[in-house]
Amino acid sequence: MKNILIISTGGTFNKYYNPKDGSLEVDNSSKYIKQISKEWLCEFKIISIIGKDSLDITTKDREEILEYIINSKYKKIVIVHGTDTIDITAKFIASKNISKKIILTGAMTPFSIKKLEATANLASAIGYIKAIRDNGVYISMNGDIGDYREIVKDRILGRFICI
Amino acid sequence: MKNILIISTGGTFNKYYNPKDGSLEVDNSSKYIKQISKEWLCEFKIISIIGKDSLDITTKDREEILEYIINSKYKKIVIVHGTDTIDITAKFIASKNISKKIILTGAMTPFSIKKLEATANLASAIGYIKAIRDNGVYISMNGDIGDYREIVKDRILGRFICI
Amino acid sequence: MKNILIISTGGTFNKYYNPKDGSLEVDNSSKYIKQISKEWLCEFKIISIIGKDSLDITTKDREEILEYIINSKYKKIVIVHGTDTIDITAKFIASKNISKKIILTGAMTPFSIKKLEATANLASAIGYIKAIRDNGVYISMNGDIGDYREIVKDRILGRFICI
Amino acid sequence: MKNILIISTGGTFNKYYNPKDGSLEVDNSSKYIKQISKEWLCEFKIISIIGKDSLDITTKDREEILEYIINSKYKKIVIVHGTDTIDITAKFIASKNISKKIILTGAMTPFSIKKLEATANLASAIGYIKAIRDNGVYISMNGDIGDYREIVKDRILGRFICI
Repeated sequence: MKNILIISTGGTFNKYYNPKDGSLEVDNSSKYIKQISKEWLCEFKIISIIGKDSLDITTKDREEILEYIINSKYKKIVIVHGTDTIDITAKFIASKNISKKIILTGAMTPFSIKKLEATANLASAIGYIKAIRDNGVYISMNGDIGDYREIVKDRILGRFICI
Repeated sequence: MKNILIISTGGTFNKYYNPKDGSLEVDNSSKYIKQISKEWLCEFKIISIIGKDSLDITTKDREEILEYIINSKYKKIVIVHGTDTIDITAKFIASKNISKKIILTGAMTPFSIKKLEATANLASAIGYIKAIRDNGVYISMNGDIGDYREIVKDRILGRFICI
Repeated sequence: MKNILIISTGGTFNKYYNPKDGSLEVDNSSKYIKQISKEWLCEFKIISIIGKDSLDITTKDREEILEYIINSKYKKIVIVHGTDTIDITAKFIASKNISKKIILTGAMTPFSIKKLEATANLASAIGYIKAIRDNGVYISMNGDIGDYREIVKDRILGRFICI
Repeated sequence: MKNILIISTGGTFNKYYNPKDGSLEVDNSSKYIKQISKEWLCEFKIISIIGKDSLDITTKDREEILEYIINSKYKKIVIVHGTDTIDITAKFIASKNISKKIILTGAMTPFSIKKLEATANLASAIGYIKAIRDNGVYISMNGDIGDYREIVKDRILGRFICI
């Protein structure tokens, strides 16, 4: 995992239930990604930024993500992002034609509520980015992985599909 | 997931605790892989064969796996296998120079005991095989993925490492 | 468990995450209590009524609960209730001086999110009501069990305490 | 929980899977009971002794348990014990006519493999002992709780039943 960077930006993936007020909050310490790393018995390089629900992500936030991508020495980057605007962020990054491999992933249900989907989305993103040769922007969700324009959220089904 | 076949052969991945006698038994119905498919919100094509602890896998069993690989219409095949002899089966398959992409995976701890490691091993194998271009035999375990000769079990650490 | 009735009225105990809109909804089919019954290897007699967050429980709802208690042949009744108004419902029932043993329980965190606290609250309520001799209204939460006036929610600590 | 002592003696309840050799070992640090305490949001007073599979428990071990019971200041004691000889230990303790309330519990499946049954057995034991008035020796397993002579292991069903 030495040559992959994970940028965690918040989203459903990182939400948890707060028993004091019954709300779902976004953890911005990447504690769940660290837990995956520990239980998977491997090490990740993780940066935690923004820490927002993806509906609240602004153009300024996207520019911050972009800056981290460009300034990083890593050529393979996994971005954990909320699912509602993952397509907008992917398009924004793709428009910059960066010579790197970038894959966005997230979760329909928070890792803290159901570990499996979030874990599989992240692990499949890591598997994909290890093998892919072409620079570009990709999405990995619910077993569908490919060019970001082909993997889209189906709000009726409650999952991502490949179009 | 339409162009990937999963062949489940048993191993620790598929073990479960039998409360009646306190033993660990191998499930040979791929029920745990089906559970991953369901919770990951996607569909797998799965074949369940052999159903053994990998220490009990014989040359005859390996020939059976080989037959399924060769006769299958699928060009991308994930094999769920016990970790103790995963290297022997990988070498056996590789010696046949099949023009397909084959990736072996498994788990240090049964899925039924700890879901995360087994799930991440399988999901990363699926991600990798979706992107890889060269035919060959690969292993995906504990975040390390690559040529089967490079990913080996470290019995002291209790995990696989990349050499 | 033959002589105990469980009345499930909703509350945090019965909430689940809806991945389609990211909200927490109340299950009113007692599916989680049935899951506890199945995994605990025993059988419960369950009635599912109201199905509300406890902040939405009205006097009319409380009268409905009361009616079930009075009309039931069961002398030992466990009520699964939301924690925010569990004290109000307990007081309402206690004011009727019913010659039965009634214990209210619930959860700070939904069973579907963290199984342990909800399970332990319910199981300890069942253990308590099996042994208690005096008719009355009791509460069982977070290991504290006793007269309903002595077990209260501490909103700062995010748990119930014994006063 | 201030007036209850938990004595953990090992048994299936405390077993865990060792990925290095694929065996089930007994934890003798009560780490799982401590986890229940933490997630249930309450505090237990715990003593960890013996740490054996119940098939290996000797008369000397039973005398050690007895000594802890007699010498303890606690009048209400929960004993976590393996299920195979829980009846023998219960009978041994009962034969001493101690003026205390003692309840034995355990699990058909290790807590580390399936949290729910072990948690519910322990929590129901705690609920029962809080309310019971008569000194004596009791067993709490799978929702059945009562005099130790009435709650027995059914090896065919793989659960305890009330006779």
